[in-house]
Amino acid sequence: MASVVGITAIALLAQHVQAVNNGLARTPQMGWDNWNSFGCDVSEDLLQGTARLIVDYGLKDLGYEYVVLDDCWSNGRDASANNSLIVDTEKFPRGMAAVADDIHELGLKFGMYSSAGVYTCGRFAGSLGYEEVDANSWAEWGVDYLKYDNCYNSGEAGTQKLSHDRYNTMAKALNATGRPILYSLCNWGEDYPWNWGPTIANSWRITGDVTDFYDRPDPRCPCDGPDAWDCSLPGFHCSLLNIINKASFVVSKAEPGGWNDLDMLEVGNGGMSDAEYKTQFSVWAAVKSPLIMGNDLRIVKPQDLAILSNAAVIAVNQDPLGSSAARRWYYETDDVDQYGKGSIQMWAGSLNSTTGGEYSDMVVLLINGNNSNMTMNATLVEVFADSGGAISDQAKIAWEVRDLWANRMSNEEAQAIIDASSASGNYTSGFNATRVGGENRYNATAKSYSEGLSDADELLLGNVTTTVQPMGTITAEVERHGIAMFRLRAVPTGSLRKRTEL
Amino acid sequence: MASVVGITAIALLAQHVQAVNNGLARTPQMGWDNWNSFGCDVSEDLLQGTARLIVDYGLKDLGYEYVVLDDCWSNGRDASANNSLIVDTEKFPRGMAAVADDIHELGLKFGMYSSAGVYTCGRFAGSLGYEEVDANSWAEWGVDYLKYDNCYNSGEAGTQKLSHDRYNTMAKALNATGRPILYSLCNWGEDYPWNWGPTIANSWRITGDVTDFYDRPDPRCPCDGPDAWDCSLPGFHCSLLNIINKASFVVSKAEPGGWNDLDMLEVGNGGMSDAEYKTQFSVWAAVKSPLIMGNDLRIVKPQDLAILSNAAVIAVNQDPLGSSAARRWYYETDDVDQYGKGSIQMWAGSLNSTTGGEYSDMVVLLINGNNSNMTMNATLVEVFADSGGAISDQAKIAWEVRDLWANRMSNEEAQAIIDASSASGNYTSGFNATRVGGENRYNATAKSYSEGLSDADELLLGNVTTTVQPMGTITAEVERHGIAMFRLRAVPTGSLRKRTEL
Amino acid sequence: MASVVGITAIALLAQHVQAVNNGLARTPQMGWDNWNSFGCDVSEDLLQGTARLIVDYGLKDLGYEYVVLDDCWSNGRDASANNSLIVDTEKFPRGMAAVADDIHELGLKFGMYSSAGVYTCGRFAGSLGYEEVDANSWAEWGVDYLKYDNCYNSGEAGTQKLSHDRYNTMAKALNATGRPILYSLCNWGEDYPWNWGPTIANSWRITGDVTDFYDRPDPRCPCDGPDAWDCSLPGFHCSLLNIINKASFVVSKAEPGGWNDLDMLEVGNGGMSDAEYKTQFSVWAAVKSPLIMGNDLRIVKPQDLAILSNAAVIAVNQDPLGSSAARRWYYETDDVDQYGKGSIQMWAGSLNSTTGGEYSDMVVLLINGNNSNMTMNATLVEVFADSGGAISDQAKIAWEVRDLWANRMSNEEAQAIIDASSASGNYTSGFNATRVGGENRYNATAKSYSEGLSDADELLLGNVTTTVQPMGTITAEVERHGIAMFRLRAVPTGSLRKRTEL
Amino acid sequence: MASVVGITAIALLAQHVQAVNNGLARTPQMGWDNWNSFGCDVSEDLLQGTARLIVDYGLKDLGYEYVVLDDCWSNGRDASANNSLIVDTEKFPRGMAAVADDIHELGLKFGMYSSAGVYTCGRFAGSLGYEEVDANSWAEWGVDYLKYDNCYNSGEAGTQKLSHDRYNTMAKALNATGRPILYSLCNWGEDYPWNWGPTIANSWRITGDVTDFYDRPDPRCPCDGPDAWDCSLPGFHCSLLNIINKASFVVSKAEPGGWNDLDMLEVGNGGMSDAEYKTQFSVWAAVKSPLIMGNDLRIVKPQDLAILSNAAVIAVNQDPLGSSAARRWYYETDDVDQYGKGSIQMWAGSLNSTTGGEYSDMVVLLINGNNSNMTMNATLVEVFADSGGAISDQAKIAWEVRDLWANRMSNEEAQAIIDASSASGNYTSGFNATRVGGENRYNATAKSYSEGLSDADELLLGNVTTTVQPMGTITAEVERHGIAMFRLRAVPTGSLRKRTEL
Repeated sequence: MASVVGITAIALLAQHVQAVNNGLARTPQMGWDNWNSFGCDVSEDLLQGTARLIVDYGLKDLGYEYVVLDDCWSNGRDASANNSLIVDTEKFPRGMAAVADDIHELGLKFGMYSSAGVYTCGRFAGSLGYEEVDANSWAEWGVDYLKYDNCYNSGEAGTQKLSHDRYNTMAKALNATGRPILYSLCNWGEDYPWNWGPTIANSWRITGDVTDFYDRPDPRCPCDGPDAWDCSLPGFHCSLLNIINKASFVVSKAEPGGWNDLDMLEVGNGGMSDAEYKTQFSVWAAVKSPLIMGNDLRIVKPQDLAILSNAAVIAVNQDPLGSSAARRWYYETDDVDQYGKGSIQMWAGSLNSTTGGEYSDMVVLLINGNNSNMTMNATLVEVFADSGGAISDQAKIAWEVRDLWANRMSNEEAQAIIDASSASGNYTSGFNATRVGGENRYNATAKSYSEGLSDADELLLGNVTTTVQPMGTITAEVERHGIAMFRLRAVPTGSLRKRTEL
Repeated sequence: MASVVGITAIALLAQHVQAVNNGLARTPQMGWDNWNSFGCDVSEDLLQGTARLIVDYGLKDLGYEYVVLDDCWSNGRDASANNSLIVDTEKFPRGMAAVADDIHELGLKFGMYSSAGVYTCGRFAGSLGYEEVDANSWAEWGVDYLKYDNCYNSGEAGTQKLSHDRYNTMAKALNATGRPILYSLCNWGEDYPWNWGPTIANSWRITGDVTDFYDRPDPRCPCDGPDAWDCSLPGFHCSLLNIINKASFVVSKAEPGGWNDLDMLEVGNGGMSDAEYKTQFSVWAAVKSPLIMGNDLRIVKPQDLAILSNAAVIAVNQDPLGSSAARRWYYETDDVDQYGKGSIQMWAGSLNSTTGGEYSDMVVLLINGNNSNMTMNATLVEVFADSGGAISDQAKIAWEVRDLWANRMSNEEAQAIIDASSASGNYTSGFNATRVGGENRYNATAKSYSEGLSDADELLLGNVTTTVQPMGTITAEVERHGIAMFRLRAVPTGSLRKRTEL
Repeated sequence: MASVVGITAIALLAQHVQAVNNGLARTPQMGWDNWNSFGCDVSEDLLQGTARLIVDYGLKDLGYEYVVLDDCWSNGRDASANNSLIVDTEKFPRGMAAVADDIHELGLKFGMYSSAGVYTCGRFAGSLGYEEVDANSWAEWGVDYLKYDNCYNSGEAGTQKLSHDRYNTMAKALNATGRPILYSLCNWGEDYPWNWGPTIANSWRITGDVTDFYDRPDPRCPCDGPDAWDCSLPGFHCSLLNIINKASFVVSKAEPGGWNDLDMLEVGNGGMSDAEYKTQFSVWAAVKSPLIMGNDLRIVKPQDLAILSNAAVIAVNQDPLGSSAARRWYYETDDVDQYGKGSIQMWAGSLNSTTGGEYSDMVVLLINGNNSNMTMNATLVEVFADSGGAISDQAKIAWEVRDLWANRMSNEEAQAIIDASSASGNYTSGFNATRVGGENRYNATAKSYSEGLSDADELLLGNVTTTVQPMGTITAEVERHGIAMFRLRAVPTGSLRKRTEL
Repeated sequence: MASVVGITAIALLAQHVQAVNNGLARTPQMGWDNWNSFGCDVSEDLLQGTARLIVDYGLKDLGYEYVVLDDCWSNGRDASANNSLIVDTEKFPRGMAAVADDIHELGLKFGMYSSAGVYTCGRFAGSLGYEEVDANSWAEWGVDYLKYDNCYNSGEAGTQKLSHDRYNTMAKALNATGRPILYSLCNWGEDYPWNWGPTIANSWRITGDVTDFYDRPDPRCPCDGPDAWDCSLPGFHCSLLNIINKASFVVSKAEPGGWNDLDMLEVGNGGMSDAEYKTQFSVWAAVKSPLIMGNDLRIVKPQDLAILSNAAVIAVNQDPLGSSAARRWYYETDDVDQYGKGSIQMWAGSLNSTTGGEYSDMVVLLINGNNSNMTMNATLVEVFADSGGAISDQAKIAWEVRDLWANRMSNEEAQAIIDASSASGNYTSGFNATRVGGENRYNATAKSYSEGLSDADELLLGNVTTTVQPMGTITAEVERHGIAMFRLRAVPTGSLRKRTEL
């Protein structure tokens, strides 16, 4: 038996206990992590500067909250101090508490990294066997988030029980500190963490590491195709489509408080086209993955800032229903690129109603993995295939179709924001909270996404493109390797009674 | 070495010890469960009303016995009362014992649900670690049946031993209550429950959750094809053909007292055609799956009631031999539907002899998964492939071919039954046991299927369509996505000696 | 690193310790088991009568030694006698010791059956948890052989360790009795018994149960193709080619004292053609499987007796080198039968030298799985691919090619043997050891296969058909679904020095 | 998260702790093992003679250091001496310490063999349960290296934990001796040793045993294709391309102190062509496999000595960066050989910079698995796909392309070396350290590879063939089953700033 969808889901939310009991991540976490751009090249300056840019660029007010320091920050353990981890003082001369304080002062939260192994992936000291002492260090320093990796785990993997128990040790240690620390479990999908992750963690990676390619195959990320979820060599260099495919199998495991993590965003790292980055951002949002930026904000390009700033897409991610979109269909095609790949797929998922009516809103994604631009279609019957029966009640009514990318910020506007930031080109010079074009931008600090959606705030709803009639078809021109993303809102009718009223 | 079939099987039945020692489910359980139609929308009224309709519509007298309340009935645990589960008194204001009493008064039995995990699938309190206290509650309330799910199991899965031990804890707790409680193990086929289920449970689910589609692929039910039985992500949204395929591998594990469970019936839920629903009912019956209705009986359509009321098909399910039909052949074809699927298959299986002769009766199913109606054939050699040798003795004699769907109740008759029920459109108004057309309907309360088959009751044997000659071929016109289902009865001859007399 | 082959293997044999320390099965066991023909229909008379026929038909003198009583012989446990198994006295009125005595008097050995589970496969009492008491019973009764099955194992499977430990418990119990009892491990290849079987057992089944079909696919034996060895649902109804394919992967695990068991012979059970039965007997012999007859000897046909009596083929099985043949090549073809199957394959393996020269003899099998008769070829380079280098020294010399089926007993001679047996048609009437045509038949009681091969006894070497020249090709006409089986003997030459002399 | 590559990798090396703490194998071990040529035919003379030839032929000065005695050297355990292993005094009349002394006197190191099982693969006494006593014996004898096999492991395999724990027992025993003993873990890739090997061993085999064929399929090495890394039947008779394919998935696991072991070299064993042997040597070097010769040095052919003596290729293997090349692309083709195989692939990997510039050198391999010679191409974009972005900075500059096989020693020179050795044809006659052509040969004893690379020693850099321009393509004519192997060195430019300076 699986989770309940659609009409009854909201009622359920009010009743059930929360799986992981730290109260965090009721919607997917948002933030930034240094790894994808900087690897081990970390420092206090980098974190502080980036945190300021998150504020300056208005990203904080869009919901990006956690600034996460990844691997390579430590320098062994201190045998004289309970074997606690020693901070690398070359990189962090004032210690970690000071870093945390700075970040907190900006209204942001601070994340750190370790591994449930003898070493971290970069072969610094790991936390296996030191869970309590390390959790206490982080709590003392004011850490709000732990990304917990899987390298060098000494054979304590290969069954759900071994992995669960190993990660649960840290879950308990974090809870025991008394400080709410978001627990981001990162074992790359080994041993089916979607099964046991929800009772111990706020998110769990479901794949090997993402790479900055749309569909390039790489033997270092060997699992693909119809069995891709069953992967004992998750690897790295996983392409966008590889990860999207893997996500398709486990979407139902996402729920408030616990999310499938598709890995950090590559938006802005330069390896993909604008269409491809839009695809990543859209799918990550719709499947309720954490949205953790992975680019160098100091050199962000306007088109990338525009993607990361799309409140209408983020509102899908932060929807209070917390239900992932699911793949409705997938076809391989002959229109292949240089890697021999061609495919199209359609995803759809329930969203909280913004109409006040009985029917949930719906998010629809048309993903063009072909090598050419093309016209894509999705019928209402396909979109609402989960809603009961061959032809659901929902397919029999009309829907407003709103393009969630229509109101994307222009490059000019994005460039103006970048230019206005005191940090531009000189990110350490000072703090500047000025936002450009504020009135046209959603401010989730002032009004949460939940409130905004309740209010049917136009900034969150995208642009109406058309109305699709009962039993109709949604159509979009979609770029090569691009995506169309729509919010469907029921057109109120008096003629249909609720099913439970029949 | 596998179980014995055919001639020697009945003798064996008399000798062997019973695998699971609660004495229940000597034939597959039959009943109704609210999940497929109502999800979490449960109440005392729903159960009571449905129970009455089961009586009114004559379904009780056809063998449907268990009224099963699925997930979402509890409201936490009572720390002051041994941590026992608290009934949600909004839904069940008089408590569960009262519900059980009402159901028992109707001559029916009462089933409940929990999960061998921290939470149920709907995230109510689960029974992992509370097996004894919960079993005691259920016994006290008068519960006769437990559906025991698999969500949130904290990594206690992934090996046969972990799953066996976890489910065995509840088996022992149920047995310890002293009350006979049918144990319906529901772990979706993880860790090969057909291996270890038979010694602890009365049935075990073999797949992820069924959906109301004939062959629609869905990545949330990812296992398909020749390895489909080996599935560590059973998922949900599994189509009819997906489940039938999975069943084909493990049919031999069914035996009196322990059954492969193909999940609840979708008949009447509106997503499939009449031909498709007949297919589900026929195959479920022939493989000895529990027959648990999953539709809303308050709005049942006459054609669906007619399917659910086919005693000749039910008699195959309730056959005392307890031997599942097996797939004899399967071919994929080019005559595909909108999902790219086309296939034909033939199943056959031994039934208790109704002729008094030496040879078992045989059930034969011709399943047309093509996109068009077609004429299908099965030779006696194929049908009796299990019976020894390239050409079995059985293939060398003539057989009466009886169409088990020929005497299906007409829609008019079904509608009359519905209309006559006081509950029609108003299911709480009162109890009315009147049955329409009684003399043409089999009453298993009055005469068990076992007795009826011994008597060769015509209501159980279907309609003779033809006699197939020695070495002959059975032929049928089969609808797109439909099925032909025959009972073969040996035509007595004096010319063939038993093999053991040679 | 794998076992040593070819020239150095004999030297190795003299040195290494024996894996399993009961001293039995230095060559694969031979005998008869009732299951394939009789299932649960067992009795003292059946065993006694069959044992006599084994003697009468000269099968004992060909090496068939163990008479194995399979499942369904017990009747619960005796709580007053240490919970020991109770013999079913309807079937065995004089008890088992008397049965053993009778069999021993005939110069044969007695095998019995149990399961490493709660029940046997036929759901009689199993030995799990009763290993010591049961081993003691068998030792007391004079049992020489245990076939130990895998049904109802309560989840004690799924890892090599669980299966090893479960089966090792019985291994220890058998050893502790002090009686040499050949231990035939029958877990159908689950958990890779070829890895851990050799240190605890004399043979281990590598597949699900064989069926009496050459290549009929059946979903109840689902594993096939290139991953067929990795099978967690071994099933039953496995065809000959399915099992041969599975054997191809693990042939190297056979060694004196421990053998891959391909399941019992179907020869004579009527489902396959003569060519197909020859194929089973030839391959089973060449891969060093135990040769356990599975037919009803009371009604044996002369052509089947002729197959079972081919000493030249049996000599390959009983070769003292104990090295399995291996598949050299396999091709699927378009010449398919009614099941859509067509393939050809060639196997070869080292045998003890019968020339006294430096080079091992070689067995070569050409297996025609096509739907037509065909001419098949194998080059010496292919045959000796294991012997070092692209072109081994062996490929550069000439070889005598001896057809091991050329001297097959005629049907007339076989019929005469059958007719001469007092047991023919009346198997309980008395003991008659007369053998017909004795001087043309090999008598392994008088001269062991090892001695016979040392002596180059013509009865063991087949008929010379030709000599293949250096770098030459062996050619044979092979029937549809048939086999050609040759022994290659090096033609002595003075021109080639040993490699180690170079 | 995976290991860091490229620019930041060197900095990382200086910081991280070493995974396995014996200080050995900072670059992959090099040496010789007797198994591939001699199997069990071992003796003191063989080892001593071979050791002398390693010196005489200049192989020692190229880095070949370990002389490894494989299986079949023992003769049971001595119950009177703590159950320690008894040396077979027929083969080693002076005992092992004397053998070690002789080898040490030659400036070489001594390796031995055992198995983490009840028996070794040749069925001599295994070390499972005797880890401490055996480690102490080896330390006493002066052993420097242990190859530790996996046969007869009594079911202590099948999960990472079981295998890790079993092998870790020996790791601890070796460490406890106080003698640095290189630990070569040989479990054929079972249970993903690349995950847990790095914290306990210096290398771990990743596949079944290599055979002396380029691409011949063999069912005894059944895992191939896209899932080949997930192999629970590693087997033996694995072809070169089979192993190269398996390596492609796990290359990232190699790191200083711990290496993926692709098994011993077959170079010189006669089964493959010169082109094929060059392929093995090149790929083994580039993926940082240990380079363990497996041929009979007493009869080495000049062309094989020339392969084994290519310092420019060895320098890739011994590169201080310790980063494996990775497969960039792989295509199957229609130009197939007699086994039906045709493919081309390109690998590339980072090397320590020999230019002193910011960019790592790069090794590029073009592998022609087609059945014909062909022109192969690789673009800089493909070669530098890991270096960030769709088009990395590295692809935008020019590179010197150096052919690492261009300066291969001529057959005449190699023959002169062989002839000059007093051991030629008479390997026991005495020790002769004379090297022929010394000034043209690299002497790693005098100058380590690390130093030589720092110095940009021409003997290590290959021959400049061309310069590839920015965004250009590398082209080579590659023989059937051959390889082209290049070192790319950045052409210094002033126009590009480092990325971190932007």
